[in-house]
Formats: sequence, C-alpha cells, structure tokens
Amino acid sequence: MKIGICDTTFAMVDMGKIAIDEIKKYCTARIIRYTVPGMKDLPVACKILLDKETCDIAMALAMPGKMPIDKQCAHEASLGIIYAQLLTNKHIIEVFVHEDECDNKKELFKLVERRTKEHAINVVNLLYHKERLIRNAGTGQRQGFEDVGAIK
Amino acid sequence: MKIGICDTTFAMVDMGKIAIDEIKKYCTARIIRYTVPGMKDLPVACKILLDKETCDIAMALAMPGKMPIDKQCAHEASLGIIYAQLLTNKHIIEVFVHEDECDNKKELFKLVERRTKEHAINVVNLLYHKERLIRNAGTGQRQGFEDVGAIK
Amino acid sequence: MKIGICDTTFAMVDMGKIAIDEIKKYCTARIIRYTVPGMKDLPVACKILLDKETCDIAMALAMPGKMPIDKQCAHEASLGIIYAQLLTNKHIIEVFVHEDECDNKKELFKLVERRTKEHAINVVNLLYHKERLIRNAGTGQRQGFEDVGAIK
Amino acid sequence: MKIGICDTTFAMVDMGKIAIDEIKKYCTARIIRYTVPGMKDLPVACKILLDKETCDIAMALAMPGKMPIDKQCAHEASLGIIYAQLLTNKHIIEVFVHEDECDNKKELFKLVERRTKEHAINVVNLLYHKERLIRNAGTGQRQGFEDVGAIK
Amino acid sequence: MKIGICDTTFAMVDMGKIAIDEIKKYCTARIIRYTVPGMKDLPVACKILLDKETCDIAMALAMPGKMPIDKQCAHEASLGIIYAQLLTNKHIIEVFVHEDECDNKKELFKLVERRTKEHAINVVNLLYHKERLIRNAGTGQRQGFEDVGAIK
Repeated sequence: MKIGICDTTFAMVDMGKIAIDEIKKYCTARIIRYTVPGMKDLPVACKILLDKETCDIAMALAMPGKMPIDKQCAHEASLGIIYAQLLTNKHIIEVFVHEDECDNKKELFKLVERRTKEHAINVVNLLYHKERLIRNAGTGQRQGFEDVGAIK
Repeated sequence: MKIGICDTTFAMVDMGKIAIDEIKKYCTARIIRYTVPGMKDLPVACKILLDKETCDIAMALAMPGKMPIDKQCAHEASLGIIYAQLLTNKHIIEVFVHEDECDNKKELFKLVERRTKEHAINVVNLLYHKERLIRNAGTGQRQGFEDVGAIK
Repeated sequence: MKIGICDTTFAMVDMGKIAIDEIKKYCTARIIRYTVPGMKDLPVACKILLDKETCDIAMALAMPGKMPIDKQCAHEASLGIIYAQLLTNKHIIEVFVHEDECDNKKELFKLVERRTKEHAINVVNLLYHKERLIRNAGTGQRQGFEDVGAIK
Repeated sequence: MKIGICDTTFAMVDMGKIAIDEIKKYCTARIIRYTVPGMKDLPVACKILLDKETCDIAMALAMPGKMPIDKQCAHEASLGIIYAQLLTNKHIIEVFVHEDECDNKKELFKLVERRTKEHAINVVNLLYHKERLIRNAGTGQRQGFEDVGAIK
Repeated sequence: MKIGICDTTFAMVDMGKIAIDEIKKYCTARIIRYTVPGMKDLPVACKILLDKETCDIAMALAMPGKMPIDKQCAHEASLGIIYAQLLTNKHIIEVFVHEDECDNKKELFKLVERRTKEHAINVVNLLYHKERLIRNAGTGQRQGFEDVGAIK
C-alpha cells in the first residue's frame, strides 16, 4: 500500500510531518510526501501522487488564512480535490484548518495537530479497516474537536 | 440489482442503517454499505460503489452542520455528487439533513429518519418502478415534510 | 428525432405533460419522459436520455423553492445540466420556474405553463428550425413574460 | 480557418451580426453562426461548433439581465464556457455585457457594440496574430471602455 | 524542460516579462509565452501550452480588478486553472494580484513584481528542486509579502 501526503509551504505548521508520524504508528504503508506552495496546488499534486506514483490514497493538508479571498481559495481547492478523487476513484482526505478557528496561535497549533492525527487514522481505516468506519457511522465524529455523539 | 449506501461518521444518526432497513422492505436488491468520515468523502465513495462494485444506484447520506463552512462543504459535496452521476450515468440520491432544519434533537432525529426512508423509496422506484415517479410528477412531493401538493 | 423530457415529483405542476403536449403540436419527434424526485436528479436523468436513449435533445423542468437552500440546489442543478450538455454535445433546455417569481399560486401556475410552452418551441426550433433562432437573435425574447424587444 | 459565433435571442442587441461584420473587416475566415435561446445554452453551442463544425475558435455573446438570478446564470454560463474550452483545447472569447453596466439603453447599445467589436479583434489576433497580444501584454486593455494603461 | 508563461493584455503590468526574466536567472528551461485578452482566457491557454506545446509546467499571471464582477471572474478562472491541471497532471502556478490589495499604483506595481518573482522561483523548484519545497513545508511562506513563519 502507498499513501501520498501533500502539504504546503503556506501553512504555519509542518502538517506533513505530523501526518506521516501518525500514520507510521498504525501501518507499514509506503509514504510519499509532496509539498507545494499553496492550497490551490494541492488538487493536482494529489492527483499526480494517485495517478503517476500509484498511491492508493492521499491526504491534502492546508491552513487557509482568514481573509475572504482565503476562504474562496479553500473553496476552489476543495472542489478540485473532490474532482481529483472522481477522476481517480481514490480517496483524498482533506485536512484544512482555518486560521480563524482559534483565538491564539497555541490553540491553533493544537487544533492542527489533533485534526491532522485524527484524519491520519481515517486514512489508515479507509485503507485497512473499512469496517471500523461502518461501526462509527452516525456517531457524530469531529476531527480536532470533541465528538458530538449520536442523537436519538 | 445492487444498491450502494454511503454514509458518514460525522452524522449524528446511523442513516445508513435506516436506509438499508427501509429498502429491504421493498426489494431484494443486494446492498453494499460504505461509511466515510465526512460529507466531502461521499462523491468518490459513491463513484467507487457505482464503478468498481457495479452498483446500479447509490444513496449519499449526510447531516451538514449549522456553520457557514458546513454549508459550503455541503455545496461542494453536492456538486461532486452531481458530477459523479454524470461520469457514471447512474443516479445517486442525495439525502442531506441540515442540523439547523430543526429546533431540537428529537425533531432532528425524526426528520432524518423520515427523509431517509422516503428517499429510500425513491431509490427503489428509480430501480424498479419508474412509472410511479411519472405518476407523481408535479405533485409537490417533499421528503421528510408533508407534501405540498399540486397547484392549478 | 427523439426528445427527452425530464421533470420532478417535487414540482407543483405537471410540467412534463405541458411540455409534451406543446411539442406534439409542432413535430412528430418521438418523446421519452423521465420523472425524478428533485432538481438535482435532473442532470444525470437528462444525460441518460441523451446517452443511453439516444435522444437528440432534452428538457429539464423544475420548480425551485423559495428558501436559500433551494436557490443553491438550483445553482448546483444548473451547473450539472451545463456539464451534461458538454459531455454529450447535445442541448438540454432548462426550464426552471422559481416559486418566488409570483405572488400567488394562480400566477405561478400560469408562469409555469407559459414558460414551459415557450421553451418547448425553443426545443423544436433547435431540432428542426435553427434559422428561426438566428432570425430572433438579439430581440430580447423572454420565456414566460413579455419579450422586452431590441434596443438601438 | 473557421470562426464560430454564438449569440442569444435573449439579448437586446444583434451581437452576432456586429461580431461577424467586424471580423470580416480583418480576415477571410469562414464564419458559422449559431443562435440559442439564452446564456446557459452558449457553452454547448460553442462546443458543438468547435467539435462538430471544427471551428478553430468561437465567440460567446450575451447580455445578462440585472436581477440576482441573471448574475448567477452568467456565472454558470462562464464556468461552462471555460470548461468547454478545456475539453476542446480551443478558445471561446466570452463577450458578456451586463444590463446594469449602463444607465440608459443608448449607452448600453454603444457598450455592446464597442465591446463586441474589440473582442472580435481579439478573436482575429488569437487566430492570426498572436504576437500582437504579446505586444499588448500588461497594458491595461479594456474592451468597451477606455484602456487604463500600464502602471510603473 | 519547457515552461509556459501565460499572461493578459488586461493586466497593468507586463507580468510575463517579469516571470521570464526571473526564471532565466535560475534555469535554462525553454520558455514559451502566450498572452491572452483576459483572466478567463488563461485556463485554456495554459492547457494548450501543457498539451500541445508539451510544457512541463505553466504560470497563469493576472491582475483581477476591484469590482464584484472581477472577483467572480477571478473565481471562475481559478476553477478553470485547477481543472486544467487535473486534466493534464501538470502544475499551473497561479499568480493573481488583486487591484485592491494596495492603496496606490506604486505599491501595486511592487507587489506584482515581488509576487511574480517569488512564484517564478516556486515554478523552478517544482521542476528542479522539489526537496526545497518539502524543506519549507509549514513555514508560512507568503508570495509578495513578508513570510509569516511557523507557529508552535
């Protein structure tokens, strides 16, 4: 199994390293890292990893800024990531942490770390343990924050 | 006939189970379930079911949150779901229940249950009884709420 | 010649019937009807008619509701309809009547009827009489309302 | 060389005629005209001209109305036009004049005429004189209005 | 190696020249320049360079205006640029400088120059030195402004 990890020089945290370290705890898949300048470079970078490097899955890691233009870039990147998946029939797990999700840098760092790690486990589960995801269906999972749980 | 059921661990209700139980009341199609982390993972999951598992139709089940970013994710997922259908020439019935459609959790649960069930019947009709849909054309059907009926 | 007519059970008027009756006044093309639950199911339904049923043109008929989510669904459906046309190199004439275009149901019914009929004639012209459209180029045609005419 | 000219019956000015007359002043390319009902019919019409009629380039001419829904339609049409170009590897020069760009009909007519003519020259340059465009790179060209010029 | 440089006559700075001069400082790749009228012509121009001229990477250079319609055009162009990359599996580095990012023309010129140059280096790194990008992952790089650095 091969996992592609795409991140950016724009982000303020080395998200790629966090993801790789976490994935290595759970599996021995080969990991290929690809760093691009910004968010909007992620879709094609992921597609190159899935198509040319024959990765089985990819992660797209980024930290959109707080300005309206950043929000729009994130939207464009997300559409590209969805479209890249449809063209390859493989998953790309998007991990975007918006700069304005936290009040201070310390909290932001923690959120980046936690969300990245939790999504790294999602990647492992999609590759090796799909039944675990089914078991958690509808349980209100939240990556980076407390899970909200199921309602009745 | 094969039906693909895609849902998420993000949702707060086990929508996949509700859909499967309802579909089984009306037909003997083989059902394949696929649970992904979030809404934006649904388009490719549905496409994998339609392409690789040769499902004849799929359901995409999710519960978008109430924040603006959740609305945007739902929009992105919807575009991906439409696009996945165009690439496969097969239907994906989207069942999204927005968290802010109801005032409390009890009502929300009921809405999820009712909308999922009513769309499960749409899936069965698209597969086995297309004439029933024609018969209901322009009759103001609403999934999850009272139908509004036709106007003259 | 074959014409595909797609409409929805969500609409409050039997738009498919209106379109079919009008088209039959002007030509003997074979007509295939396909009713789906909602607006967002129209793109793939039209594409199936154009691809698998080898229709030469299709109509996509719907009545978007008045809530913001309805507007967004209409936007998503429209993008899908445009995209389906690009993948098939065939026209899909979209006839959407928004519920909030009129003050009361009677006016709304009339608008649906008139716009559907006028677009049905556009469909016939695109199939049989392209020169009539050229003759009307830049004349301010409005389907469902009074034409606004040309400016000098 | 073949040039496709697509316009609409919705527009209030015969934009196709203006474009054709202007192009003929500068070259002897064969011109094929295609009129459709509205803006959203332009993407596939242009693609048909580029694919089936083997045009080398196309113009998409329209006059979006002033209502929010018109703006959205223009947005959808533009995305379709960009996408049609990517699928054909040929240019489609979009000439949209928004009804609310001018205060009165006389000014609007003049703007339509001027922008269409200036873009017709862009079409000719893209086909025959690409070096002229390079020569004008970064010079603040505006079609329909005074050029704004370069900044230092 | 071949690099495609696409810019516009709409921009107020000769962005193509700045990019080319900068790239030439760092490598001997063959450079092909392509100037189009406006932003929305960039996606297909880049795709033509990548597909037909077999460029290995492209730059899309533009200066969106300050009106809402300009913002929308930039959004549409960005989506097209992302999509062109997915269809070619090659990078297109987008360098957009919005007219309203600066208060005066002098500052704007400087920003255009600096952002274009910094992205030209990104292009060179993507082609020749991918390891440099990995080394800068998560370091808060900003093209045109001071880098913001990493957070802990």
